Amino acid sequence: MIKTDILIIGAGPTGLFTVFEAGLLKLKCHLIDALPQPGGQCSEIYPKKPIYDIPAYPEILAGDLTDKLLEQCKQFEPGFTLGERAETIDKQDDGSFIVTTNKGTQHHAPVVAIAGGLGSFEPRKPLIHNIAHFEDKGVEYIIKDPEMYRNKKVVIAGGGDSALDWSIFLSDVAKEVTLIHRRNEFRGHLDSVEKVQDLKNKKKINLVTPAEVIGIVGDEKVKAVVVKQAQHIEKEFEIECDHFIPLFGLSPKLGPIANWGLEIEKNAIVVNNALDYQTNIPGIFAIGDVNTYPGKLKLILCGFHEATLMCQAAYQIINPGKRYVMKYTTVAGVDGFDGTRKEAPKAVVKAIE
Amino acid sequence: MIKTDILIIGAGPTGLFTVFEAGLLKLKCHLIDALPQPGGQCSEIYPKKPIYDIPAYPEILAGDLTDKLLEQCKQFEPGFTLGERAETIDKQDDGSFIVTTNKGTQHHAPVVAIAGGLGSFEPRKPLIHNIAHFEDKGVEYIIKDPEMYRNKKVVIAGGGDSALDWSIFLSDVAKEVTLIHRRNEFRGHLDSVEKVQDLKNKKKINLVTPAEVIGIVGDEKVKAVVVKQAQHIEKEFEIECDHFIPLFGLSPKLGPIANWGLEIEKNAIVVNNALDYQTNIPGIFAIGDVNTYPGKLKLILCGFHEATLMCQAAYQIINPGKRYVMKYTTVAGVDGFDGTRKEAPKAVVKAIE
Repeated sequence: MIKTDILIIGAGPTGLFTVFEAGLLKLKCHLIDALPQPGGQCSEIYPKKPIYDIPAYPEILAGDLTDKLLEQCKQFEPGFTLGERAETIDKQDDGSFIVTTNKGTQHHAPVVAIAGGLGSFEPRKPLIHNIAHFEDKGVEYIIKDPEMYRNKKVVIAGGGDSALDWSIFLSDVAKEVTLIHRRNEFRGHLDSVEKVQDLKNKKKINLVTPAEVIGIVGDEKVKAVVVKQAQHIEKEFEIECDHFIPLFGLSPKLGPIANWGLEIEKNAIVVNNALDYQTNIPGIFAIGDVNTYPGKLKLILCGFHEATLMCQAAYQIINPGKRYVMKYTTVAGVDGFDGTRKEAPKAVVKAIE
Repeated sequence: MIKTDILIIGAGPTGLFTVFEAGLLKLKCHLIDALPQPGGQCSEIYPKKPIYDIPAYPEILAGDLTDKLLEQCKQFEPGFTLGERAETIDKQDDGSFIVTTNKGTQHHAPVVAIAGGLGSFEPRKPLIHNIAHFEDKGVEYIIKDPEMYRNKKVVIAGGGDSALDWSIFLSDVAKEVTLIHRRNEFRGHLDSVEKVQDLKNKKKINLVTPAEVIGIVGDEKVKAVVVKQAQHIEKEFEIECDHFIPLFGLSPKLGPIANWGLEIEKNAIVVNNALDYQTNIPGIFAIGDVNTYPGKLKLILCGFHEATLMCQAAYQIINPGKRYVMKYTTVAGVDGFDGTRKEAPKAVVKAIE
């Protein structure tokens, strides 16, 4: 059982900044995220895209934003349960909560902060009748650990940036990479498309277009995929492989959280924005894109504010009756849980003679 | 008469970010500030101090924060009335406002956003009976334009960073710089104290300590100051000079805004935090450190959020009945009023052969 002060569901920008603000109040955080790395959609969906409305960043790439937030909260040593989806929540007699993931990992905390963004990202799956049978037996919809593909034969399907970028990356790792797309045209960054063209010319990537994977062959594990090539009058053939990775995009789903008894409106969690972003269940807060209230804007900068005010309320729940006096970081510095301290250079008092 | 969409009182971080968010909604802004430059206390009081709780900045100097915010809002060409204090507000029949400064500059706008921080910064003045007579006639409490001191004789009084830093700076500009402090010890950055020591040794700064200026001599303009030196049994003498600059710190005062008919609580303006940070007077909003509501934290990051939500309400006042559809900057880019455009590199659709 993992124990913490604030259990954060969702490791996107709002969740990560919560770690920092909680840390200033001496509260420890643990984050659960269905994706294999922190950063939410900023890391998974558009790491190379610029964002223009993060305050004081005229421009920042989404991936860099994640890195900066991780660096900022590092002092407060957050725990992570990654690649698992928060599934159930059980309120204990003392008011605390136990949250269990789809893989059975249990977390215990007096306060739960849902920073789930638009929901947990679920892959769009191709319509192949026996694909469910091969999930985690050679079929992966998200690449969690590229090392798993070292010296393996890999088939990637898809026509966007994910399919292009992973084909490029795995061409150096896997024994064989085949990229299959139902059109000849790919949609992505110009340099990614050109790089794949180049790797195809050098025979480091096999390209099969326009074509679709229509079946999977194997017993306990994937042995091959069945491919239907469009241009040659419905020609079908098999490609031997250890892994089949359909990268057709991720779409966010509120998922199991929708069944936690929270008040939901238009796929978002209703919170008390006049006070502390608490939900209808005391001790459960919702911050960032996952919540709704009058005038709500789904902007990262709003999540930062909501997280900050929420931490004050969490402090009161965890330290009942204790008065918190806010200190400015510029004046008081920042003391990390890791023993590090940040502080402004102190003024000296010194005679001039 | 200066005309704009949103008239912002206060050019600190919250005011500057308002320009950006308003710009995304095609609304123009003009800012009034009593200080001679934008940035509020970040520029005037602690430009070299690090702030640790700006989201995604593990550390940023207050002066750099101002620069980044100015850069971010530059595309939206804000207007500035600097070195003037907003004095009176008059509601017009059509619901718009005319705001007049202490120097008589008039501004007309349908929406007023008070982003006044802790108030307008008023200098702490030394107790010298005839000092008021010489204000702007050789006595300045804030240095607005260092060029004004070129080849002049200057006396600076004070023992903190401002007095140290301006003595250093003006030692290269003025004909003669005298620094007077009532103690031998100065309080400031070590390098500033050491630099003044060095300049004193090189005779580029005259140092008179422990001593106080107790009188000013002159008719229409300052001709000399009367100095009482503490250690030599109340010795008094005159120092000839063109300017006397007492730098004893600035303290914020809500000032004339307190008389605008706004609901005030503990020196802050009460706003509706459940919706749009509007005050009790429709069309006047208060954002950042100047406002108060249940759970309020006087943090820069909260001002950013409040400014953003406020702009949506301003849009409705300025464009009644028009529906605003929010676009993400990552997707839609940013179109400046200056004709520039920021946008994410577009995806290409390209065949691989």
